[in-house]
Amino acid sequence: MGYKIFPPKKDLLSELIEKVNGKTKPVGALGRLEQIAIQIGLIQQSLSPVLNKPYILVFAGDHGIAREGVSAYPQAVTHQMVNNFLSGKAAINVFARQNAIGLKVIDAGVNYDFDPHVLLTRHKVDYGTRSFLHEKAMTKEQLQQALDYGEVAVDEIKSLGANIVGFGEMGIGNTASASMIMSRICGLELIHCVGRGTGLNDVQLQNKFGVLRAALDRHADVTDPLEVLQTFGGYEIAQMCGAMLRAAELQMVLLIDGFIATAAFLVAQQLCPAIKAYSVLCHQSEEKGHQQMVDFLKMKPLINLNMRLGEGTGCAVAYPIVNSAITFFNEMASFTEAGVSNRIDQ
Amino acid sequence: MGYKIFPPKKDLLSELIEKVNGKTKPVGALGRLEQIAIQIGLIQQSLSPVLNKPYILVFAGDHGIAREGVSAYPQAVTHQMVNNFLSGKAAINVFARQNAIGLKVIDAGVNYDFDPHVLLTRHKVDYGTRSFLHEKAMTKEQLQQALDYGEVAVDEIKSLGANIVGFGEMGIGNTASASMIMSRICGLELIHCVGRGTGLNDVQLQNKFGVLRAALDRHADVTDPLEVLQTFGGYEIAQMCGAMLRAAELQMVLLIDGFIATAAFLVAQQLCPAIKAYSVLCHQSEEKGHQQMVDFLKMKPLINLNMRLGEGTGCAVAYPIVNSAITFFNEMASFTEAGVSNRIDQ
Repeated sequence: MGYKIFPPKKDLLSELIEKVNGKTKPVGALGRLEQIAIQIGLIQQSLSPVLNKPYILVFAGDHGIAREGVSAYPQAVTHQMVNNFLSGKAAINVFARQNAIGLKVIDAGVNYDFDPHVLLTRHKVDYGTRSFLHEKAMTKEQLQQALDYGEVAVDEIKSLGANIVGFGEMGIGNTASASMIMSRICGLELIHCVGRGTGLNDVQLQNKFGVLRAALDRHADVTDPLEVLQTFGGYEIAQMCGAMLRAAELQMVLLIDGFIATAAFLVAQQLCPAIKAYSVLCHQSEEKGHQQMVDFLKMKPLINLNMRLGEGTGCAVAYPIVNSAITFFNEMASFTEAGVSNRIDQ
Repeated sequence: MGYKIFPPKKDLLSELIEKVNGKTKPVGALGRLEQIAIQIGLIQQSLSPVLNKPYILVFAGDHGIAREGVSAYPQAVTHQMVNNFLSGKAAINVFARQNAIGLKVIDAGVNYDFDPHVLLTRHKVDYGTRSFLHEKAMTKEQLQQALDYGEVAVDEIKSLGANIVGFGEMGIGNTASASMIMSRICGLELIHCVGRGTGLNDVQLQNKFGVLRAALDRHADVTDPLEVLQTFGGYEIAQMCGAMLRAAELQMVLLIDGFIATAAFLVAQQLCPAIKAYSVLCHQSEEKGHQQMVDFLKMKPLINLNMRLGEGTGCAVAYPIVNSAITFFNEMASFTEAGVSNRIDQ
């Protein structure tokens, strides 16, 4: 640990606001787009910010807790879905392609050996975490390795020219992990944190809740953010956390996906609160609990399309809106340039 | 009048739902995108719907009511902004370019003679409407001409290959018109319908409210939807209404922008309720009253970015999301194709 993340300097703030307000539109009329333009201007310390080579990193990992029947899908779906990503036909591939976003899939700890593939990075810490119902999901050393791998993944896309990065994930059982992290970090009762994940029915949901209730009691003394992450996993969440911290350190724009990615972000912002200034919550997930994560963070997701898929799909679908913010800021005429009269009362 | 708009046949509905549910994702996990894919599949009567040559039509008109001080900007801003559109540097130009959407600007009734321009269509009914504080905004003949012109504008982009069209507008004073239409069509008190438009202060808002209150009393007997449109205008709203009706008749996908465009849509759906099945409300406007329009329509806007600019900017910014719906529907693998296991309990 030792991330050097500082809030962006505010020196340019008044000039950024002035530039937004000089555009040929009523003051404030582009709403959230104006705020994002200013946010990215501050991140890049520029009156002409640009988005270069956007990437989405999809971290995949398996979870020991999946053996306790907390998911509607068998664990094998994690590696099957990774192969689906590699074949280019999963939701995240489709949306990334549509919006010209680069994609990297990271094997953070899947219980499977993949063939080498141009889209795939092998950052496997182990073949899945241990079940946190019985013990900590990973060792301290494994946590550190996961955080380090996350850094490496970001350094790589940075070296390719990216200055904006979205974070997505795949891992059967990982809403369970995310719920535990949420409960501990936000100090919320489990009942507010546990949802249907990929679509549990009532009986399955009841079972998931019971398992997580017992696990939370077993690890009642764990409150330190990093220990929370170590205890409840998974490797993909830990790698996302390391990646997010590194991306903020590199003054990139961070696009945060739904419930699981926001759980990783919860840990990251406990370690370095300044990370929030670099981040955009891309979408409001349908997974129960996400709204309260968002409230805890005092942030506001860009869109709400009732999605709950993960994979970084919320980042990919919302990306054009972030791009719209930069586009109007750089390309729209000012009142002066366009010869348009400003308000009567000014 | 005599639009032949029928609800799309439902024959394909179960096949469309089956295709959505077969994709490699939990059932329902793409939320609103799934609904839009199915909606457009029904509109196009196709299991492989496509979006061809999207266009946004921006209708501009001046308003007699603007002389009563209901806007924060002078009336000349209407023609100045049209020239800004033609120069390619207004918000709508920037967003349309970003998202590869064609643009047509229609002079529906601006108080100005424009030089010919490749982006501009001259469908001028008059040099602005009359003030509805004193008389009806337009004659019956002018209303008919406006509706017809709207049809022509849609026929033109249809002949260019468009099967999806967004509707935007520009017209100093047109939130006043839209508020009056809303009040009469939705049967809502004026207080719920009148907002700050381009940014009125409290005193100006009070004046606007007083003017509209008096105008509503003057035309107390007007309730027929077309007579409401004739009475309160403007030409750009009437042309949008005609254009929307024609687009639905041609089984195109309709993208509806914010407060003013939704006012035109209110009239259109009173005339032909089936138009709703062809339409997507693109964004929730910040203008007071829009939420209640939306509630009246029992529809749900795609995005809410606190925007209140008009010009069709809500359509342009939301368009990539509509496109995402079609993209996942056509390009994502099914469980069978990808060799991914489906739910445990299925």
